[in-house]
Amino acid sequence: MSDTMKALVYSGPEKIAIQDVPLPKIVEPDDAIVRVTTSTICGTDIHIWHGGMPEVAPGRIIGHEFVGEVVEVGPAVRNNKVGDKVAVSCVTQCGECFYCVRGVYSHCTTGSWIFGYMIDGCQAEYVRVPHANLGMFTIPDGLTEEDVLFVGDILSTGYFGAENAKIEPGDTIAVMGCGPVGMCGMTTARLWGPSKIIAVDINQERLDFAVKQGIADVGVNPSYCDPVQTIRDMTAGRGADRTIEANGFKATYDMAIDAVRPGGNVSFIGVFEKPQELAMNTLWIKNITISMGLVNANRIPELIKLIQAGKIDTNFLITHRAPLNDIVKGYDIFGGKKEGCLKWVVTPYQK
Amino acid sequence: MSDTMKALVYSGPEKIAIQDVPLPKIVEPDDAIVRVTTSTICGTDIHIWHGGMPEVAPGRIIGHEFVGEVVEVGPAVRNNKVGDKVAVSCVTQCGECFYCVRGVYSHCTTGSWIFGYMIDGCQAEYVRVPHANLGMFTIPDGLTEEDVLFVGDILSTGYFGAENAKIEPGDTIAVMGCGPVGMCGMTTARLWGPSKIIAVDINQERLDFAVKQGIADVGVNPSYCDPVQTIRDMTAGRGADRTIEANGFKATYDMAIDAVRPGGNVSFIGVFEKPQELAMNTLWIKNITISMGLVNANRIPELIKLIQAGKIDTNFLITHRAPLNDIVKGYDIFGGKKEGCLKWVVTPYQK
Amino acid sequence: MSDTMKALVYSGPEKIAIQDVPLPKIVEPDDAIVRVTTSTICGTDIHIWHGGMPEVAPGRIIGHEFVGEVVEVGPAVRNNKVGDKVAVSCVTQCGECFYCVRGVYSHCTTGSWIFGYMIDGCQAEYVRVPHANLGMFTIPDGLTEEDVLFVGDILSTGYFGAENAKIEPGDTIAVMGCGPVGMCGMTTARLWGPSKIIAVDINQERLDFAVKQGIADVGVNPSYCDPVQTIRDMTAGRGADRTIEANGFKATYDMAIDAVRPGGNVSFIGVFEKPQELAMNTLWIKNITISMGLVNANRIPELIKLIQAGKIDTNFLITHRAPLNDIVKGYDIFGGKKEGCLKWVVTPYQK
Amino acid sequence: MSDTMKALVYSGPEKIAIQDVPLPKIVEPDDAIVRVTTSTICGTDIHIWHGGMPEVAPGRIIGHEFVGEVVEVGPAVRNNKVGDKVAVSCVTQCGECFYCVRGVYSHCTTGSWIFGYMIDGCQAEYVRVPHANLGMFTIPDGLTEEDVLFVGDILSTGYFGAENAKIEPGDTIAVMGCGPVGMCGMTTARLWGPSKIIAVDINQERLDFAVKQGIADVGVNPSYCDPVQTIRDMTAGRGADRTIEANGFKATYDMAIDAVRPGGNVSFIGVFEKPQELAMNTLWIKNITISMGLVNANRIPELIKLIQAGKIDTNFLITHRAPLNDIVKGYDIFGGKKEGCLKWVVTPYQK
Repeated sequence: MSDTMKALVYSGPEKIAIQDVPLPKIVEPDDAIVRVTTSTICGTDIHIWHGGMPEVAPGRIIGHEFVGEVVEVGPAVRNNKVGDKVAVSCVTQCGECFYCVRGVYSHCTTGSWIFGYMIDGCQAEYVRVPHANLGMFTIPDGLTEEDVLFVGDILSTGYFGAENAKIEPGDTIAVMGCGPVGMCGMTTARLWGPSKIIAVDINQERLDFAVKQGIADVGVNPSYCDPVQTIRDMTAGRGADRTIEANGFKATYDMAIDAVRPGGNVSFIGVFEKPQELAMNTLWIKNITISMGLVNANRIPELIKLIQAGKIDTNFLITHRAPLNDIVKGYDIFGGKKEGCLKWVVTPYQK
Repeated sequence: MSDTMKALVYSGPEKIAIQDVPLPKIVEPDDAIVRVTTSTICGTDIHIWHGGMPEVAPGRIIGHEFVGEVVEVGPAVRNNKVGDKVAVSCVTQCGECFYCVRGVYSHCTTGSWIFGYMIDGCQAEYVRVPHANLGMFTIPDGLTEEDVLFVGDILSTGYFGAENAKIEPGDTIAVMGCGPVGMCGMTTARLWGPSKIIAVDINQERLDFAVKQGIADVGVNPSYCDPVQTIRDMTAGRGADRTIEANGFKATYDMAIDAVRPGGNVSFIGVFEKPQELAMNTLWIKNITISMGLVNANRIPELIKLIQAGKIDTNFLITHRAPLNDIVKGYDIFGGKKEGCLKWVVTPYQK
Repeated sequence: MSDTMKALVYSGPEKIAIQDVPLPKIVEPDDAIVRVTTSTICGTDIHIWHGGMPEVAPGRIIGHEFVGEVVEVGPAVRNNKVGDKVAVSCVTQCGECFYCVRGVYSHCTTGSWIFGYMIDGCQAEYVRVPHANLGMFTIPDGLTEEDVLFVGDILSTGYFGAENAKIEPGDTIAVMGCGPVGMCGMTTARLWGPSKIIAVDINQERLDFAVKQGIADVGVNPSYCDPVQTIRDMTAGRGADRTIEANGFKATYDMAIDAVRPGGNVSFIGVFEKPQELAMNTLWIKNITISMGLVNANRIPELIKLIQAGKIDTNFLITHRAPLNDIVKGYDIFGGKKEGCLKWVVTPYQK
Repeated sequence: MSDTMKALVYSGPEKIAIQDVPLPKIVEPDDAIVRVTTSTICGTDIHIWHGGMPEVAPGRIIGHEFVGEVVEVGPAVRNNKVGDKVAVSCVTQCGECFYCVRGVYSHCTTGSWIFGYMIDGCQAEYVRVPHANLGMFTIPDGLTEEDVLFVGDILSTGYFGAENAKIEPGDTIAVMGCGPVGMCGMTTARLWGPSKIIAVDINQERLDFAVKQGIADVGVNPSYCDPVQTIRDMTAGRGADRTIEANGFKATYDMAIDAVRPGGNVSFIGVFEKPQELAMNTLWIKNITISMGLVNANRIPELIKLIQAGKIDTNFLITHRAPLNDIVKGYDIFGGKKEGCLKWVVTPYQK
C-alpha cells in the first residue's frame, strides 16, 4: 500500500471530485480497515452532494453502502480477521451504550450513521470501520459481493420498515414508494407472510417491474386513481392492515396514514425534509400506531442467511456498474433518475 | 316499574334537561337492561352538551360511565343474570367482528363507543346494555360501587394509554395532563414498574395533589419552567422513555413528542379538536413510535381485581356527589372545572 | 329434509358404523345447523375409534374437520346466514369467557374441542355448530371446498405450532414429524420468513415429497443419521432456532428438545399418550422455552386469505376421496397409513 | 499494591481456604481490574464447595456476586474509568456474539457465567472483570454498596424469572420457593402489576417474613395444605396465571406445573440436579408455556434506577456480615441455612 488513495471528496454543495487523500488508520482498538471492493451511491449521498446536509464538513469522503476485504484490525476486534470478505453495516454500533442495549442501534452514542457523514465513507479505496465487531459480516462462500451489497443499508432499511409495521400473516400491506428502498421494504415485508403487497407509485414502469419480479402483488398508480379508495376497495372498505412509506413527501405521507385501517400500523422509512400535518382531530379515535426512524441495521446476519437460502434476491436493483473513476457521472445519472437507474454500483478504481 | 323513567335528554347545543322518557327494552338476544345506581359526568358529555359532537341526535340520553343492577337479560346473555350488581364498559364489544377478534374492540362494527352518543346512555334510571356478555362485570363482595365506578371509562382509558406506551420496568414516564384521565394514566402506568412518573400540568394544585397521593413521583409545571428541558434534565439529557398525553391540545401534544427520548413511545389519549404538526423533518431520524385511539376497555376484570387487591384506588377522584335530579348543575360545575371538581358522581333520582 | 340422517356413530372401542340418527336442532341462540358437504377423517378420530378416548360416549357421531352449507341459524347468529358456504373451526369458541378474552380459545369454557368428542360431529349429513359467530367462515368465490378443507383443524394446528415457535425471519426451523399436521406446520412456518425448514421423519417417501413440494428445504431421516447432530451441523453447531414436534412420541419429543439451540423455542403440537422426561439438570441452564397445547383455531380468516392469494395450498394432502357411505373403509386405510394415504376426504352420502 | 492478595481458593470437594495468590492482571483490551469492597456467598458457591460442579478446577477463586472499585482498565473500556464504584454482573457478556445480539447474554460465547467457575471470582481482594463495558455499572450517589449488592446476581435472577413468566397486570402469581432468589422473584414480579403474589414454602418463618415485608400477598405452606388446590381455590378454580419456581426440586417443579392455569406460564429459575417428569399426556392439551435458564443479567441499570427511586429494596436479605477472613465460617452458616441466614455478606479483608 502507498500512503495515499483515491476517494470521492465533498468540498461543498454541488462540489464532489475524485482526489488523492491519505490512507485511513486504526484509531480505536475495535476499528478495522477495509479495502472497498464494491460500493454504491445512495439517495442520501445525493442529498449531501446538493448541500442538503450542511453538517457534512468539506473534505469529507462520502458513501456508506459497501462490501470489501479486511486489511487491518485493532486489538479488540474479535469477530473478523485480515483477509475476510465482509459486508458492512451503514450504522455503526457499539453494542454497549444506553441505546444499543435497548436495540436502538441507530442512536448508538459513539456510532449511528456516521460513514460518509460524520466520518469518512466508502467511496474510496479504503475505509476505517469503527466498532468492527458489530459492523462487519463475513460473506459466505457461494455468494457474490453484489448478492449482499445492499444488506448494509437499503435492504436493512426496508427490513426495518417492514419490522416496524408489525405485519402479521395474512395482512394486506401497502407500500408507498417503489424506488430501491420501497422495493426492499416489499421484499422483506414478505418475510412476515402477508397475503397481499400493494405497491403505490406514480412511476408505472416501476410498478410493473415490481409486480413482474413478484415483489408486489399489485400496483396502484395515483396518476390514474384515488389510491386510498383503491386500497380500501381491496380490503372490504377498511384499508390496509399496515402501510409503509418509503418516499418522504407529503403525498405519500398522507396516503400512508389515510389508507391504513383502524388499529393498523404506519411505518415511515422515507427521509423527510418538511414537517407534515397529523389530523389528530380524526386520528385520536382511529387507533393507529405510527413509527419512524433511522435503520437499526441489526439483522444483517439474518438477511445474509436469507439471501444464501435463496429467499431474498436483490440483484434486480443493480442497473448500472462503473469503476470509482466514473462515480461523478454516477451521481448525475442515479441522482437524476436517468436511464432507468435503480442502483449505481461502484467497482474498484482502475489505474 | 312504571312505563317511564327520568333521564337527562340532550335536545341540541347547550340544551339538556331531565325529562320523562320510555323505559328501555331488550332489542337483541344479547342485550341486558340495567338499573343505573351510580354514574358520572365525563369530559365527552361536556363536549356533547356544548354541541361539539353534532352527530348526537336531539332526544338522546347522554352518559356512558356507570354501575348498576341487572333487571332483565336477553336469551343469549350468559355471563350475568338478573340481580347482579355490575360495572359496565363504555365501549360496547361483540367479540366476534373483524376488529374485536384483533383486539381493537373500540372499533367493534356493531358496538364501539355508542352509549350516550349513538344510543341512549346512562344518565337515566335505566339503560339498555348491548352485547352484555362482554360489557358487564360483576362487582365483587367487599367493594363499593364507587370503588369500581371508573373502570368502565376513565380508568380503562388511562390503562389503555399506559399500555400503548409500552412501559418497561425502570422507565421514566411523563404524563402530560393531570386531570382525571391523566391521573388514571399515572395510576395504571405504575402497573408496569416505572422508576419515575412525572406529572405535567399548569394547575399546580393538581400536581401537588398527584404527588401527595403517590400517583406521580414529581410534578412539572410549564408555567414556571421549560417542561421538555426539565424532563431531559431528569433523564441524563435524553428525554422520558415514554410520554402519555391526556389533554388534547397543541401545547401538550408538542411536549409529548419533544420530551420523549429516541426510541421511545408517545401515547395519545387526549381528545383533539384540531390537526397538529408532526415535524417529520427531524422525527424521521428519532425512531419514536406514536399511538393514539379510543379506549378498548377490555381489561376491566383485571382492573377490578387490582382494586379488590388494594393495588389501585381511584376514590380520590370523587369530589362531588348529587342525585340525578341535580345533574344539570353538575354539568356546569364539572364542565367549568369549578369548586375543584375532579369527578361529579350521580346518585339515583330522588322522588 | 326428512327427520333422520346418515351419520358415523361410535358405539365403543373398534365399533363404528353408518347409522340413521335424528337430525340436529338449534339449541342455543347462537347455534347454526350446517349441511356437511366435505369432511375428513382426522388422527384424533382414529384414537377415538380405537377406544383411546374413553370419555367419548357410545352413540356419539365422530368428526370435526369439515366445510358445508348453512341451513338454519339461531336468533343471535350475526356473521352468517342460511345458504352461506362455510369452513368451520374444530374448536368452538364463545369469545366472551375468561379464556377466550385472553386468546386461549382452545379452553373456552362453553366450547373448546367438542365436535365429535363431547357433542356430535361432522361425519354425518348435518351438524349443529355452537357459537356459530366465531366458528363459521364464508368460503370466498373462486375457492373450492377442498381448498379450505383443512383450515378448521390441521392447517390451524400447524399454524398454532408455528406461531408458538416464535419464528423470526432468517431462522432455521426443524419440524419433527412429516405427516399431515407436520406438513401443515412447515407450510405455515414459512409465513414467518425462516431461511431453512428441516423436515425430520423416518418415512423417506414423505420427506422427499415435502422437499419436492417446497414445503421443506431439506429432509433428515433418523433411520440413516443422528438427526440432532445433523441439525447442529447445519447450524454452525448450535442447533435449530426453533423446533416443532408434530408426532407425539418419545423419539421426536427428545429430538425437539435436544436439537434446539440455547435461547430457542420448542413447540409441541403432537398428541402424547405418555409422560416424558425433561432433563432439567441440563436444561435449567439452556434458556429454552417450551410450549404446547390444543389449537386455538383463531386465525382461520387469515388462512383463507392466504389460500385465496395463492400463498398457501394444501390440496397436496388429499390422497383419497370417497362418499360417507365408505367412511369405515377410510378409517382402516387412513388409520393404518395404507396406500400412502395422507388425508381421506369424505364426500356426501350417496343414496 | 503488593504482588499478592488474599482470596478464597477451592482445592477440591469440601476444601476451601483463604490463601495468598497473585494479583489479577488485564488480559483483554476490554478487561478491568476491580477491588472488591463487598461481596456475598451465593447458593452456587455452596454447590461448588461440596464438589457438585466438578468442572471447577482446583485452585479456582470462588464467588460471583459483588461490588467494588475500578482500579485499572484496558484500552477498549469505554463505559467506566479508574475510581468508579461499580456493581458487577455475574454474567459476562460481549454484546457482539450470536447469542448476545439475540439477547441471550447468558450464553455469550466468550462470557456467560464464568466468575468463580471458569475464571477466578470475587471472594478475593481483587478480581479481573472481562467485557467490562457491559458488566460494570456505576453506583449512583446516595446508594450504599449493600443497596445494589444483589443486582449482579440474585436480584437479576429474580427479575429474569419474573420476566420469563410474562406477567400481565392483574395476574395472580405463585412463587415456589421463598429463599433469597424466590424473594427476589417476588420483589421483581411486582414490577408487572400482579394483583396477587402467593409465596409457597415449607418454611413458615420465611413465608411470614415475606408477607410482613410486603413482598408476598399471602403465604402457602405445603406442610399444612395441598398447595395446588389452595392456589386453585384462590383463583376461581383455574390456577395461577403464572408460576415461578425458585427451588430446583421435584416437589416445587410439580407444583409449578400443576398450579398454573391453562394458557399460563411456568418460569423455572431453580437450579436442578435431576431430570423431572413432564406429563405430556395431560399437558399437550393444557396450552402452557415453560421457560427456564441462566439469568441474562441485562437489566442491571434499570434495577439500580428502581432501587434509587425506592421502588425496590433488598436490604432485608442481609442477615450476616463478616470480613473475608471469616468467609469459611460463612460457607458453613449460609450453606447450612443456620442462624436464619438469608445472605452472608463479605466485607474487605482485615489485616
